[in-house]
Amino acid sequence: MINKELKLYNTLTNKKEKFEPINKDRVGMYVCGPTVYGEAHLGHARSAITFDIVFRTLKYLGYNVRYVRNFTDVGHLVNDADSGDDKVEKQASKENKEPQEVAQYYEAKYLWAMDNLNCLRPSIQPLASGHIIEQIDLVKALLDKGLAYISEGSVYFDVEKYDKTVKPYGILSHRTLENTKDNSRTLSGQEEKHNPFDFALWKKAPKEHIMKWQSPWSEGFPGWHLECSAMSRKYLGQEFDIHGGGMDLIFPHHDCEIAQSVGAYGNMPAKYWLHNNMITIEGRKMGKSYNNFITITEMFSGEHHLLQKAYNPMTIRFFMLMAHYRSTLDFSNDALIAAEKGLNRLFEAKDKINSLPESKESSFDAKKLIDDTINAVLDDFNTPIAIATLFEIAKHINSVMDKKETITKEDKDFLQTNFNDIIDNILGLKNDNKGNNEDVIKGLMSLVLDMRKHARENKDYQTSDQIRDALQELGIEIKDSKDGAQWRLNK
Amino acid sequence: MINKELKLYNTLTNKKEKFEPINKDRVGMYVCGPTVYGEAHLGHARSAITFDIVFRTLKYLGYNVRYVRNFTDVGHLVNDADSGDDKVEKQASKENKEPQEVAQYYEAKYLWAMDNLNCLRPSIQPLASGHIIEQIDLVKALLDKGLAYISEGSVYFDVEKYDKTVKPYGILSHRTLENTKDNSRTLSGQEEKHNPFDFALWKKAPKEHIMKWQSPWSEGFPGWHLECSAMSRKYLGQEFDIHGGGMDLIFPHHDCEIAQSVGAYGNMPAKYWLHNNMITIEGRKMGKSYNNFITITEMFSGEHHLLQKAYNPMTIRFFMLMAHYRSTLDFSNDALIAAEKGLNRLFEAKDKINSLPESKESSFDAKKLIDDTINAVLDDFNTPIAIATLFEIAKHINSVMDKKETITKEDKDFLQTNFNDIIDNILGLKNDNKGNNEDVIKGLMSLVLDMRKHARENKDYQTSDQIRDALQELGIEIKDSKDGAQWRLNK
Repeated sequence: MINKELKLYNTLTNKKEKFEPINKDRVGMYVCGPTVYGEAHLGHARSAITFDIVFRTLKYLGYNVRYVRNFTDVGHLVNDADSGDDKVEKQASKENKEPQEVAQYYEAKYLWAMDNLNCLRPSIQPLASGHIIEQIDLVKALLDKGLAYISEGSVYFDVEKYDKTVKPYGILSHRTLENTKDNSRTLSGQEEKHNPFDFALWKKAPKEHIMKWQSPWSEGFPGWHLECSAMSRKYLGQEFDIHGGGMDLIFPHHDCEIAQSVGAYGNMPAKYWLHNNMITIEGRKMGKSYNNFITITEMFSGEHHLLQKAYNPMTIRFFMLMAHYRSTLDFSNDALIAAEKGLNRLFEAKDKINSLPESKESSFDAKKLIDDTINAVLDDFNTPIAIATLFEIAKHINSVMDKKETITKEDKDFLQTNFNDIIDNILGLKNDNKGNNEDVIKGLMSLVLDMRKHARENKDYQTSDQIRDALQELGIEIKDSKDGAQWRLNK
Repeated sequence: MINKELKLYNTLTNKKEKFEPINKDRVGMYVCGPTVYGEAHLGHARSAITFDIVFRTLKYLGYNVRYVRNFTDVGHLVNDADSGDDKVEKQASKENKEPQEVAQYYEAKYLWAMDNLNCLRPSIQPLASGHIIEQIDLVKALLDKGLAYISEGSVYFDVEKYDKTVKPYGILSHRTLENTKDNSRTLSGQEEKHNPFDFALWKKAPKEHIMKWQSPWSEGFPGWHLECSAMSRKYLGQEFDIHGGGMDLIFPHHDCEIAQSVGAYGNMPAKYWLHNNMITIEGRKMGKSYNNFITITEMFSGEHHLLQKAYNPMTIRFFMLMAHYRSTLDFSNDALIAAEKGLNRLFEAKDKINSLPESKESSFDAKKLIDDTINAVLDDFNTPIAIATLFEIAKHINSVMDKKETITKEDKDFLQTNFNDIIDNILGLKNDNKGNNEDVIKGLMSLVLDMRKHARENKDYQTSDQIRDALQELGIEIKDSKDGAQWRLNK
């Protein structure tokens, strides 16, 4: 039984709502994943981390969650108004590769980056190109309902008809069709459409196009909005709980998804629509289209002209959690360095709990502080407030350590369990210093061998024996040669 | 220009042949990958490592290689004679999950295992479920040619007709249709087939089946043999260079693939057919069907009743390379422990090259030994001979180190480049001792802090300062408290 209340901000109603899943203990969540034609950057990381927190919180509450996040490997065109090259195919031709080769390369890179950022893998990560049949079926359903029309081998969604006869178009972005009309420019290459704001369900492929499939209308490929409707339905059913993505996807992408599902099957695909805000850099949204992005690889290596240093994955994660997911987050080295320090402070406090001296009374209310932290997370995933409360707890821990405050054994055990649980499992922050461990071992060994040499020169055989024994226990073998001692780690 | 000759054993001709690619500098290779319904075991590792050596050798020779390896996530039935449950779907029902969830979990586990074994990722790793349209197209082509028939909503390949009118069936396994007939039992549930040796191209799905798609014949799913024909053609073309897999796939799987491709398009899909032999354990083939397998996870952890200890991924890789891929390889702890020692000997020699004393003459022919090693690899990937030659080189390196032999600067540089190149790039053996590095650092730090404490107690401030400085340089921060010194690695 789930007995804690979760509130989340629903873009559909523009309100914070109590979360009530469609099926008692099970939750279905669909999040729009990346188009795999380039390396993941900080913007992708923010979306992945946001919904990782949602996923972790739901699991923490005891829900059985099926989390689906797609990879777009086909159909996402350079020009958002249904024209221009396919993004993946364009990159493939640049790299002189098969599109699928490019897609899989960037898919693996993305997963590597998100694994490093300690984002749990979604339950299912479907590929758009792997669900052409399901997409064709959806186009057929929309044609059957008279909400789509065929034009020159392509199929378009009839926005005006949908808006007049089914449901207003734009209910997620809270715009009317009149707004949309005013903002639609008539672009060249759009002559096939009845209206410039209609969107492609199926596109007839140009001859030289590689990624194309037979359909009743033409050899072609699905429109970009289609895959999410088809795949969320396949893996989560006609109606599921949460649909997530970046704010830039609200319109047109998610509004088109809604129109497709409502048009074809009569009901809204998802109950709650969650959107994370953007990362900004020098006052502008960070994105591949703006060419102002920093990739995760660059963040880890520090090799980018805007970076003062390399950042640990957990520093990046913590930096993101220090802002609420619905606020913009401005990239800055100062903020990252502050995050690094802050996170170390939390980890230090975490390590100390076990050795706190115990007293008969606690000078602070540990239970309330932990409750406050969890309640902040349950209040629309307010991680900055949760973290501020964790800092407060850390301060108490330090004071107890310095004997300026006190804690009971019971409270200490409680903190040990819950402080750790929040940091490890809800916020997903782990204190491992991977990376250059080999260099650290090399450095330490050079120091140890120096000291061994020194001890032997001074005939301090007790010390040199101690070193030998300790190293042996660690599986480190030493061989003395004329050129000094060599060592090897045997495992 | 590729100027070295590669020979490989072609199962199709039962002969070692000179490799001549269809397109001058480019090679297409398709290898049958795992059915993702359980953890990868040593048998999977052997196939992956075998074709990783083929991939690396082709790249070493200068070819531009497109290496495709599939994941079977649908259509592989428990009973090989086209009946029984789908393997992935059966596992999913056991785990109470969506089939795609199970498939993706084991796909990720497989990639993790093969990454650890230092197998390079194939260029494209297509999913069977992602290529239903391509498979339906192939069924249509075979029906059009009259080589398949529809029965109760399923479609079967007409083996006898193919054999009589197109090409003998069984040319890869070198059996005649008469052999096949004699060995085919009439099983129950096979009444739909004209002949028991006919095989399914499309199966009508039972009602409760989850993974099914619309087709002209029924809502159903593709036969297991179909996916490889459809996907190899899609990504490598109608005719490509190398088709690989385990020996147990020669018949019926690869013979069926040949029949499908020749039947539908008129030509053999691949020119060279390579097959790795099996791993045996206690005299029997290791396999999931025999329930006598050791998973890669178990090998790494040592947690299996047949394992004396945990084995490093590189030990496992080296153990496999010490046998020729076409010989059976018997699992034994003794052989693995011998591999571990042998590999360490090679790594030690590799590390020594740089510090070898130089002389005016070499007492051994380094160039010839390196040539012998490479030629062994180029002679149908004879890694055991290559490794024996590397051991010979290692012996010379040790003798030079002990001043019993000599080497010139030129030969030393040559060895430095080529010995390393063979070990790193062709054999793919890397000397990293990942894994418990954190424990090693902890152990070393405890030793270093002990010595610092000791030095301070003895007022040997020179030593304690030396330690502090060295640690600082490594990014290790020390804080003294009443409970002793605490340390933290800052990065």
